[in-house]
Amino acid sequence: MGKPGKYILTPESGAEAGARASGTGTVQPVQPAATRAERWSVQRLLDVIGQPSVTLVLWDGSEFPPQRATSVADIIIRDRRALRRLLVNPEYEFGEMYSSGRIEVVGGLSDCLEAIYRALRTDKNKGRLRERLAKRLAKRPRNSAARAQENIHHHYDIGNDFYRLWLDEQMVYTCAYFATPDASLEQAQTAKLDYVCRKLQLKPGERVVEAGCGWGALALYMARHYGVSVKAYNISKEQVAFARERAKREGLDDRVEFIQDDWRNIEGVFDVFASVGMLEHVGEAYYGALGSRMDQVLSTAGRGLIHTIGRDSPGPLNAWIERRIFPGACPPSLSELLPMLEQNGFSVLDIENLRLHYAKTLEHWSQRYEAHVTQIEELFDETFVRVWRLYLAGSLAAFTSGTLQLFQVLFSRSGNNDVQWTRDYLYQESN
Amino acid sequence: MGKPGKYILTPESGAEAGARASGTGTVQPVQPAATRAERWSVQRLLDVIGQPSVTLVLWDGSEFPPQRATSVADIIIRDRRALRRLLVNPEYEFGEMYSSGRIEVVGGLSDCLEAIYRALRTDKNKGRLRERLAKRLAKRPRNSAARAQENIHHHYDIGNDFYRLWLDEQMVYTCAYFATPDASLEQAQTAKLDYVCRKLQLKPGERVVEAGCGWGALALYMARHYGVSVKAYNISKEQVAFARERAKREGLDDRVEFIQDDWRNIEGVFDVFASVGMLEHVGEAYYGALGSRMDQVLSTAGRGLIHTIGRDSPGPLNAWIERRIFPGACPPSLSELLPMLEQNGFSVLDIENLRLHYAKTLEHWSQRYEAHVTQIEELFDETFVRVWRLYLAGSLAAFTSGTLQLFQVLFSRSGNNDVQWTRDYLYQESN
Repeated sequence: MGKPGKYILTPESGAEAGARASGTGTVQPVQPAATRAERWSVQRLLDVIGQPSVTLVLWDGSEFPPQRATSVADIIIRDRRALRRLLVNPEYEFGEMYSSGRIEVVGGLSDCLEAIYRALRTDKNKGRLRERLAKRLAKRPRNSAARAQENIHHHYDIGNDFYRLWLDEQMVYTCAYFATPDASLEQAQTAKLDYVCRKLQLKPGERVVEAGCGWGALALYMARHYGVSVKAYNISKEQVAFARERAKREGLDDRVEFIQDDWRNIEGVFDVFASVGMLEHVGEAYYGALGSRMDQVLSTAGRGLIHTIGRDSPGPLNAWIERRIFPGACPPSLSELLPMLEQNGFSVLDIENLRLHYAKTLEHWSQRYEAHVTQIEELFDETFVRVWRLYLAGSLAAFTSGTLQLFQVLFSRSGNNDVQWTRDYLYQESN
Repeated sequence: MGKPGKYILTPESGAEAGARASGTGTVQPVQPAATRAERWSVQRLLDVIGQPSVTLVLWDGSEFPPQRATSVADIIIRDRRALRRLLVNPEYEFGEMYSSGRIEVVGGLSDCLEAIYRALRTDKNKGRLRERLAKRLAKRPRNSAARAQENIHHHYDIGNDFYRLWLDEQMVYTCAYFATPDASLEQAQTAKLDYVCRKLQLKPGERVVEAGCGWGALALYMARHYGVSVKAYNISKEQVAFARERAKREGLDDRVEFIQDDWRNIEGVFDVFASVGMLEHVGEAYYGALGSRMDQVLSTAGRGLIHTIGRDSPGPLNAWIERRIFPGACPPSLSELLPMLEQNGFSVLDIENLRLHYAKTLEHWSQRYEAHVTQIEELFDETFVRVWRLYLAGSLAAFTSGTLQLFQVLFSRSGNNDVQWTRDYLYQESN
């Protein structure tokens, strides 16, 4: 890759490819060669993002940098207006332009994004980006119950049929646990459910509350395999309907209750609090309220587990992902997450970072997604296909590069001595 | 316990016991019965500390509360001036009065202290104590290199012979790892050294830097069993002399260098950073400097482990312990500790809380200490014996009650994918 002139980007072929990718069918006008100012700007852009090992190719076939030895992918910018938008706000507009087909990536999309994520983290970039991040951090969304309802509806209510095409058979939409890297997605999701139950040391008859239950897989697993009763909260209407139906079908509806409501309204007394993949949507402004709610509903020997996407240091989610995919989402660093426990009388027992397991999970999802891309295009349209392709590839890149983490935080009431002596018990049987 | 009049505290017997305990030999003057104001104050004190299940007995034999059903110990206050001092500043003066024998505890000393620690954590006390804690937090000591030198000298340079009497044979003065609760202290300390090495995945030829190395046991273990080279820093003169002597004797002085210097002066490039039981002495004001030092000396694929006493939420060390035992010490909560890693490009892989292992370690130390109490009194004096008895029992109570925690934090450079796939590897062989 990276040899000059390798793409024949005549106006005709450019227009054809652009039309196919954007799905509009219109023919783009003939574009003249890039100007000196445009060429300078592209070089500057590469400099600013830390010279990732990718090649930028403009509509006239010119490549930047001209002779990169180790490029993992070519990013083709199909027209000058796309370049202009990219230069103004690269973090956000890359996603917009890719979605509409005005930017194309040749080579692995997630490899390309991983190279960029890694370059963004170099020392040179740290200072420069810190200020921008601080500004965006200050503007992080505040997810009231009403706002949370909109946010969750946006992502999770787009149709169970869509998710069924590329999730595992139990519809688990969170990081799996691969006992070995070659485990199947089905094995790894079941292993994750069981790993969470074992970390929590569930005992028959105990009362569990789950905050954010997806399509219900964990709640049902807990009830079936560990004999507990579960109240599972979720504000996604489609997910709750699916979960209730499954509980009924499997004869677990006497022990598992799915409640379509916000975590702010959790009521009752429970032995165990579990939340897998919800904290991402809560927002730091409400961590105190969540911790206080856990304190209110957990028994004196209560314990809990929070499984969440996180970060190595405070920072916002990618702007495009936050706008187009997960409105209101913000993965916390541990120092942002833990005051929720510290200020409410809890003690951290165990924190595990499963970052590479999420990368592996996303590899599986991406493969399944691509295998059903024709069906997905029929359900939606080509822009939707590209949006979700970029989201999955970008997430894979974020976990592979260490831009995102996956934390499992196990905790109990402070001073509770009824805890496991060592962590051996987690590894006695293979998953 | 708790029956009125069970102690015959005539002036003579009181004086005798007091004289024996304080070691002064002077006879206390006859004391009249406690006044109504004194009796009211004692009841108020019990109220303020949350009515722990202990009985306070005054010099005239009166007991508070009069009929406690479940008292774990009697705290005898031998004279009215001791009571007055206790009322003014119970957290600090309890230690002072106990050390001089003017307060005696009948029943398990650590059980007594555990009951008090647990009572102090009740809801009723949380608000009341928060303000006082905030004040003390604001005044936490700043441990410059010079101040650190004094602090460490105070505790660690009181004589290797003393520590030899009650530590394990390898002289490890940090929390052990008991594979099972009935492991011996020797087994558990060796298991801890090995556990740290396995968490760090040491490979032959790697370069390790250790910040705060005690008497050198971990550095020597790493070199002997994992084939690494170690530079180990410590500002305690007596400990470094001991460690160098041992390295020479065991033929490891070509691979283990003990350096009598502050962590601020660590120089070189290392694959691994290890610090076991030092962070307690650093003080939060210097965490940023420590994190930055780690960033400077670790290689691009560097990793590290910090093993430290901590807390479930920010708070100062007990005032008496900080004054008499560990000047400058302050165990951090995780949210206080982690910014050190987050702000310096590190990623948390694994955090384990070994609180009950420290309680077990302290049980062993206390037993060995009591078995050598005659020798210790000969080396020092009876006040010293009581000071250290209270420190060991108080620490045991703090870990048993959850007032203190023990965190092992494993980390690597952000985005380093050369990490273990799961934590199974830690539990493949029994210790």
